[in-house]
Amino acid sequence: MAFTLSPGALAPGSRIGILGGGQLGRMLAMAAARLGLHAHIYAPEPDSTAFEVCRERTLAAYEDEEALARFAESVDAVTYEFENVPARTAALLAGLRPVRPSAAALAVCQDRLIEKEFLADIGVATVNFMQVDHAGAMARAVAQLGRPSILKTRRFGYDGKGQVLVREGADLAVTFRSLGGGPAILEAVAPFTKEISVVAARGASGEFAAFDVCENTHENHILKFTTAPARIAVQTAAEAVLLTRAIAEALDYVGVLAVEMFVIEPAGGGEQLLVNEIAPRVHNSGHWTLDGAATSQFEQHIRAIAGWPLGATFLNGSEVEMENLIGEDIYAFEAILREPGACLHLYGKAEARAGRKMGHVTRIRR
Amino acid sequence: MAFTLSPGALAPGSRIGILGGGQLGRMLAMAAARLGLHAHIYAPEPDSTAFEVCRERTLAAYEDEEALARFAESVDAVTYEFENVPARTAALLAGLRPVRPSAAALAVCQDRLIEKEFLADIGVATVNFMQVDHAGAMARAVAQLGRPSILKTRRFGYDGKGQVLVREGADLAVTFRSLGGGPAILEAVAPFTKEISVVAARGASGEFAAFDVCENTHENHILKFTTAPARIAVQTAAEAVLLTRAIAEALDYVGVLAVEMFVIEPAGGGEQLLVNEIAPRVHNSGHWTLDGAATSQFEQHIRAIAGWPLGATFLNGSEVEMENLIGEDIYAFEAILREPGACLHLYGKAEARAGRKMGHVTRIRR
Repeated sequence: MAFTLSPGALAPGSRIGILGGGQLGRMLAMAAARLGLHAHIYAPEPDSTAFEVCRERTLAAYEDEEALARFAESVDAVTYEFENVPARTAALLAGLRPVRPSAAALAVCQDRLIEKEFLADIGVATVNFMQVDHAGAMARAVAQLGRPSILKTRRFGYDGKGQVLVREGADLAVTFRSLGGGPAILEAVAPFTKEISVVAARGASGEFAAFDVCENTHENHILKFTTAPARIAVQTAAEAVLLTRAIAEALDYVGVLAVEMFVIEPAGGGEQLLVNEIAPRVHNSGHWTLDGAATSQFEQHIRAIAGWPLGATFLNGSEVEMENLIGEDIYAFEAILREPGACLHLYGKAEARAGRKMGHVTRIRR
Repeated sequence: MAFTLSPGALAPGSRIGILGGGQLGRMLAMAAARLGLHAHIYAPEPDSTAFEVCRERTLAAYEDEEALARFAESVDAVTYEFENVPARTAALLAGLRPVRPSAAALAVCQDRLIEKEFLADIGVATVNFMQVDHAGAMARAVAQLGRPSILKTRRFGYDGKGQVLVREGADLAVTFRSLGGGPAILEAVAPFTKEISVVAARGASGEFAAFDVCENTHENHILKFTTAPARIAVQTAAEAVLLTRAIAEALDYVGVLAVEMFVIEPAGGGEQLLVNEIAPRVHNSGHWTLDGAATSQFEQHIRAIAGWPLGATFLNGSEVEMENLIGEDIYAFEAILREPGACLHLYGKAEARAGRKMGHVTRIRR
């Protein structure tokens, strides 16, 4: 006797390759292990925190084609924990093994300009934006979008890195060069009242499941708190989920994705949504699902890329809050351990540097 | 700035040594990782399923004193996933690092006779029992305890292994030799109506926390279902917890332990408890806590041995059921993945042999 499997589904005991060794890769590897799958982490940093919870590890550059080929041979499917996987790396792996989400989805999401053009193409509202390829293009873009506006590198931005506010009186050429002088995008500033995100999954056969829409609070450009459900109108939450589904379908997406949105409350009343960013991966604003939802985003992602049925997404309790522990926040760990029902997650990082995500804590209101 | 720690508490980033590489060691290692602690698994089996979720691994015999010394040097505290750790191994490690639970607690719990005498000494009721060191002692023991009664090896029994029913007409010498001819214990058969267990923890500073008393159903001597809370009277549940606390205190225990008990319903009414066995470790009947309690037994054990505060033990929902997936049960994994809210855990074992624990599933009634 053996496993009866749906078409395309991996058997338990299959091997999942994960590019990236940070806390997202770490929590993906643990979710894979919990489901009887064997994780293989590929990362270039020797102190990758995901290396300690996987069966196999490859310490190599993302450009090391020999190492990539060996990695592909040793696994049954490949996924990643970050969107900046080089296109050539993704293409090479995709020629050898299923890569989920696809290299095409990755290409859209790793470039802010391509991403916003994709959203415009499928009719999803975003802030206004203009392409800025060189310093000379700044004047026209700023004239169009006004000040303040935000100049962002097209690639490699996260946690507020790779962006700068264009203020009244700022020298435009200096501002452009301050981001390195590479291709950029200028974005209008959205007059938002809330930042929300939808963490959702699309399965290999097209099924879709979203977690509760959640609300995010940032400090110093870094996510500090996520609360689910978001305090928005039911219709707004439904619209946010439908937008996310439309995005996932247009990308023929397989896996978990997170869509960050701004909530605008116009003077005339109501709530409007502008999509800010798509993360083609598990996301910090979905960490609350580890303790606060029927299935965690990490397990959901593994289920999706394994071709398995998606799990239930309902909330455990009535409200869940996730707090990121950043830098020295971790020193409060004993107090958190004493809080009845608080769920502490630490990422095993050696040094509590300022701005570094060291762990998170989930609090559930029942 | 650095960590402010309670006396005796380990800092995050400390290293936990775990003897034993089965699913219990695996789930302990994952709980340690979740708390930012680094697990080092020591096991003699190359295919140990815990090896794939820990930072360090030692593949060596429990009698390899050089390997044990290196292991001790590489960790800050030592624990174990099974009670048959050789006394000499425990003593050697205890000379180098804190071993929790202690070698003394281990010595009591790894020998059925010593365990029952310990329970009698502290006034805890068990079934009647007699020491049977050789075939010649069988007649007197059987005359005392009647037939049927159960002959068990004093050590190394689990899942019905190492025991035999002494039936009417059975040849006593043959029966004795069928268990290998080593020191044994004869136990009266308890007329129980339910089997329950209490999974609880005692912290390094003496605090105690029990999970809901749970009820166990065995098939072919192997645990098949655990349900929490047990369907017993509130006073009986309270008594079960108090007995467990008394046992933990008498052993000066640190860590999670499980106490298996029989529920007897005398003709006159009411419920009486007889303690059957103490497991000085996390226990299969506590697996439901991974999804069904505020803190899992694995995290609770790690908290206790790290000198950290114990976590809350309340039930998530109104009733939780754990089903063991034994042997070919695992082939139903896709159907389980489709069950809304069912939580699947697979242990990553390569072969679905009959009687082998391959995983478990938790179902929560909310």
